[in-house]
Formats: sequence, structure tokens, C-alpha cells
Amino acid sequence: MATHPAQPDTPAPGDSYVQSFARGLQVIRSFSANAPHQTLSEVAAGSGLTRAGARRILLTLQTLGYVVTDGKLFTLTPRILDLGFAYLSSMPIWNRAEPVMEALVQQVQESCSAAVLDATDIVYVLRVPTKKIMHINLGVGSRLPAYCTSLGRLLLADLDDDEARARLEASNIEALTKHTVTDIDALMAKVAQARKQQWCLVNQELEEGLISVAAPIVDRQGRMVAALNISGQANRTSAKAMQETMLPALREAAERISRML
Amino acid sequence: MATHPAQPDTPAPGDSYVQSFARGLQVIRSFSANAPHQTLSEVAAGSGLTRAGARRILLTLQTLGYVVTDGKLFTLTPRILDLGFAYLSSMPIWNRAEPVMEALVQQVQESCSAAVLDATDIVYVLRVPTKKIMHINLGVGSRLPAYCTSLGRLLLADLDDDEARARLEASNIEALTKHTVTDIDALMAKVAQARKQQWCLVNQELEEGLISVAAPIVDRQGRMVAALNISGQANRTSAKAMQETMLPALREAAERISRML
Repeated sequence: MATHPAQPDTPAPGDSYVQSFARGLQVIRSFSANAPHQTLSEVAAGSGLTRAGARRILLTLQTLGYVVTDGKLFTLTPRILDLGFAYLSSMPIWNRAEPVMEALVQQVQESCSAAVLDATDIVYVLRVPTKKIMHINLGVGSRLPAYCTSLGRLLLADLDDDEARARLEASNIEALTKHTVTDIDALMAKVAQARKQQWCLVNQELEEGLISVAAPIVDRQGRMVAALNISGQANRTSAKAMQETMLPALREAAERISRML
Repeated sequence: MATHPAQPDTPAPGDSYVQSFARGLQVIRSFSANAPHQTLSEVAAGSGLTRAGARRILLTLQTLGYVVTDGKLFTLTPRILDLGFAYLSSMPIWNRAEPVMEALVQQVQESCSAAVLDATDIVYVLRVPTKKIMHINLGVGSRLPAYCTSLGRLLLADLDDDEARARLEASNIEALTKHTVTDIDALMAKVAQARKQQWCLVNQELEEGLISVAAPIVDRQGRMVAALNISGQANRTSAKAMQETMLPALREAAERISRML
């Protein structure tokens, strides 16, 4: 898939950069699970704007129906989902992929997710859960680091080595569990292995007890446009069992989706 | 839930309205399943901007990593999901609701969705599908009209009559099937019935063969913050069977989620 430069912290304003637009997007992003309802001052602080600037953006969002206020607290409305939906609906693949993923979940009785790469993260674009819940919430649009996930290492494997290394070097690498590989060269070896075998298994490197395996979704030009994975619990499913019993079904599902592209 | 005015087509610019921000959001929304990759001219036409204005917005989006280009065609990146995810993550209820919905799907073997009201539409915020697929794609962020859906009529029932009627009058009401109720007074009677019984069943008014029943998710102040539904196929599940066998489980799930609020 196409790449883009890492997001600069403070791009320089200029003829071709609309500062007020960038600031407005930052206001939208200042709302979160920790800050679902914010005062004007909180929005200003969270988006790096003056109170006057934050007020103008909030009033614009309110006029457009993206924000409501009780006079003191501001809250995003569901209309904001239209912005993300513009992306998802611009990828009709997911409509067609979903039944394949649902059939896979019925077969293996584990959750199945699809993700794409964005800089150093994977971003979930579709997810078919089972009733067995993991600790991590992985809704559409949520992110995880690429370096320690099966989806991420496989997606990194579609980049050339220089680019994959650059992404790893830009990552905030931490030993999230005692199994997490944190050395860049060791991670590059994992990425090379994923590239060679065209699948990737990661065993408890993101979270203790969580094991997952990923397979690529590839377009007609041979580019990896996304990756599909199955996640399970290590105490129910060993790495060996996941590879032997679930990986073939996963690869078949990923190939079926790829043939639709 | 809080209400907001219908979105005006062309709000007047002024001291408290940031035109460039509003235009930038329109550029994001110009991408769709029909227009996943657009030229500068197409974006300009789709968002009502001049080429120069569209170019500045696209370059800003590119700088921020929300858009990539091959030099000719522009495409949204998955980073755009961060904007919608700001909304979803600002409602932690959905993390906690999902396991309840998954258990319900396992029990009734039909899809379960959660939605909120936005002007005249319902917007899906969470969905747990089964392997049986309906004709309509109902991903997170997708919309359906409120007037002909069980979720919509129930959510309208939480408004006062004047507001509910205003929303219906603002709706583009069509006979989508031969069963669709299109008369405003008749629809208001359906809304009143939903308010009284605190659930709503709609039988093939959105699509032939599609039947669904909805129950409210209510916060501690008694406000309906969302609605939950089960959808099924009329040829497998009659309205009577849905009401007698699935509605009790649905209401129990909705009450469990409400108690978490």
C-alpha cells in the first residue's frame, strides 16, 4: 500500500497548508474515552489552541452538527463517524470480506480481524469477534503497535527493508511482556521470516496469554493491501495448534478475499 | 440524548464560523465507495471548492498523513479513522456493551446492532454480526433512515412529540417496500406505541424479508442514550416468533448494558 511520511508535530504554515483546518482536526482528536465531555478550556489545552481559537472551531463543529453543548460542556455527536466512514466506504473490499471472515470465525471459533498499516501502527478496519473476549478492546479504528503484533510484522514485510527498519526505528519499542522482541535486528529477522513464509505468528509479545497468526490480503498487482488475523488465548490454543489447525483456514480465507480484489 | 439543529447547507461565514475548516471536512466526506481515489478536479467538484482551495486542503491532509497521492489521484489513509474513533472511544459504554451483545448473538443466532440518532438518521455504533448476511451493509458509522427502522422509531420515541414530528417531517420518506408506513400521523402512532411499550418491532418496512426488534439503552437519568436491536429474516423468523422468543433476551441484554451506565 502507499506510504506517507510520519506526521510532523508542528508543520510550518504556508501557502499550501491550512492551519485552521489542521487545528480543527486536532480539536476533534482531543475528545477521547478519558475526555468525552470537555469545557472550552479543556479543548483549548488538549488541542494546543487559544480559547478564542478553540471556541471558533467548536462553534463551527456545532453549526455542522458534529458537536453539541449544554452551554458548558462540549460533546462529539455520532455525525463525526461520517468522517471515518468516508474511509471505510471508500474501500468496498470490506463489504465483501466480512462474510468470509464470519465463516472463518464460525469454523475456528476465534476472533478474526483485518488491519492496515499506518506509519508505525496497525489500524483495525474490520473485526468479527467471538463471544470469548480479550483484554484489549480492538474496535474499528483502534490502533496497536506494528512491531509486536502478527498483523504488524506481516504488513511491515510488504515494505522494503530500509522502510521497514525506518518504521521500527520510529516505533516506541517496549518489552510489553517477557516474550516481546525489542531488538531492531531481531525484529527485522522476524519481518524477513514473515515475508518469506507469507504469514506471521506472534506468541504473547503484545499481552501475556494472547497469541495470534496473520495472513496477507494481496491485490492483483501483488501488493499487500491489508492483513487478516486470528487471535486466541495461549492457555487454550498453543502456537503449534494455531499453526497446524487454524493457519490453513486463515490463509484460505485471506486468499478468497484477495481473489475478490 | 442531546439534540442539535439540522445541518444547514451553506452556513454563513462569520466571526465564529471557520469556513476553511468546514470546507476541509467536506473534502474528507467527498471520498466514498464510488469515489475512493479522486483527482484534484474531482475533489473540488465533490466538495464545492475551487481547485486552488481543494489543493490546499488536500496538501494539508497529506502533510498530516490523512491522504496519500500518487501525484494524480488522492486517497484517504486509515489515519482518518482516528477522527471517528475519537467519538467511539469517548463512549466507553461500547467496550462494556460488546460482550453482552456477543452473548445475545450466540443465544438468538441473529445479528445485534447498537445505534444512536442523528437528526433523521440512525447511525450504527457497534455491530455483532452472525454468519447470516443481510443485503444491507451495516458497518460502524453507516446510516439508515429512522422512520422505517426499529432502532429509529424507538430512538424517536425518546424525543417529545413536537421534536419527533419535526424529525419525521424533515425525513425523505419513501415506500421502500409495500409494507413501509409513510404517513406522518401513522408514523407518530408507531412512535407513541414504541414509547409506551419501550420496544419496537418493524416488519419488512426497510427491505423485503428483513424484520427487526429494538430495545432501549437508558442512562441513570432515564434518557435513552442508544438502542439495541436484533435483525432477522422474515422467512425464517416471524414477527410473532421474534417478539415471543427473541425480544425477552434482547430486553434483558439492553437492561444489562443500561445498568453499566
